[in-house]
Amino acid sequence: MRDDIVPKLVIVRHGESLANASNTFTGWNDVDLSEKGITQAEHAGNLLRQLDFSPTMVHTSVLKRAIKTANIIMDINDWLYLPIQKTWRLNERHYGALRGINKDKARADFGAEQVQRWRRDFNEVPPLLQKADVERRYDLLDQSIMPRGESLAMSYRRILPYYADQIAPHLRRGEDQLIVAHGSSLRLIVKYLERVSDQGSSEIEIQNAEPLVYELTPELTIKHKIIL
Amino acid sequence: MRDDIVPKLVIVRHGESLANASNTFTGWNDVDLSEKGITQAEHAGNLLRQLDFSPTMVHTSVLKRAIKTANIIMDINDWLYLPIQKTWRLNERHYGALRGINKDKARADFGAEQVQRWRRDFNEVPPLLQKADVERRYDLLDQSIMPRGESLAMSYRRILPYYADQIAPHLRRGEDQLIVAHGSSLRLIVKYLERVSDQGSSEIEIQNAEPLVYELTPELTIKHKIIL
Repeated sequence: MRDDIVPKLVIVRHGESLANASNTFTGWNDVDLSEKGITQAEHAGNLLRQLDFSPTMVHTSVLKRAIKTANIIMDINDWLYLPIQKTWRLNERHYGALRGINKDKARADFGAEQVQRWRRDFNEVPPLLQKADVERRYDLLDQSIMPRGESLAMSYRRILPYYADQIAPHLRRGEDQLIVAHGSSLRLIVKYLERVSDQGSSEIEIQNAEPLVYELTPELTIKHKIIL
Repeated sequence: MRDDIVPKLVIVRHGESLANASNTFTGWNDVDLSEKGITQAEHAGNLLRQLDFSPTMVHTSVLKRAIKTANIIMDINDWLYLPIQKTWRLNERHYGALRGINKDKARADFGAEQVQRWRRDFNEVPPLLQKADVERRYDLLDQSIMPRGESLAMSYRRILPYYADQIAPHLRRGEDQLIVAHGSSLRLIVKYLERVSDQGSSEIEIQNAEPLVYELTPELTIKHKIIL
């Protein structure tokens, strides 16, 4: 890649979901955007219009709150024709048996400290599901790697291969890329890009539909970071 | 493929576009859905819910009226996680220099008979553009095959390779497939599937957002055809 080409990686967390609104652990539950979330996605799309940013590909999870946010952003920027890759590897962290439980209820049942550890400790594994989900969207995945719950460390190990193999090569060729995903899955990509320590990564906050723009060097280190 | 597996191919023309509404030649112009078109796409999505149909992939053009129709259908059927392939090969017929011209005006300028030939004669080539479009979405296409206008025969020759290479192999494996595209591009796929003669193919009418369901044999000949 030529030295004067500065590829941009833009990261956007989905707009508010119906689960964000109700304060439950969500993870792989496929909840929809709230009305507010749709408006937030439109706003994110309009912010990106003001940027010199022209992705060749859009990457998202197989969860509709991220896919719909991506579709809204693509529509507003006249990018609907772009290839969109949807992958389980960009899914939110899998919250195991905590999934669908209200966070206040979890604090009452397990104690606030334990809940805080589940949320923020890099290696703390949530209570696992007895059996992995059987869902058509995961049919073609090697079932022996289907998570039944993940620590942040486990999420990190399944997200990074996708970044390394499917996103970084485009950036290395100088092509802008857009990722639309989830609070924890994006936090872990930011951890990787910014070389944040395991425990430090719990401090990274990614707001709904607030685009994070990385201008990168040819070696894919960070030149500038802008929050729109 | 086992003999008792009957893969379904469903073909949907996009909902009404702003150009359908204004009666202009459109082709590769990237016009949006009208409000009526959105409602039609939702209706098509609901019709498909009542069918035993479970596609593994969605195929569409790089034009937003088709992509949006596909996204609406996918949302209503909870298929947003499915891979979607967007290809110039499923684009509408390229209408060359007629593009953007009102059909009544074209009849006044060129005569009704000539306009009818341009619309329906299999080999009639419309007036070509002086230069092929320069559009980012076609950047990676070999520029020597970018059309400047197409007869139906020319459209047929660029559509069929996509059907043969990207759709038929999935059907051969027994996987249902969904195509969301355009009046002429779908008419030409129907011509192929139903072995319609060149001139006979001009009689095939595909209505906006009216799903056409083909149940196929293992050899991909037609077992049943249903219009929903």
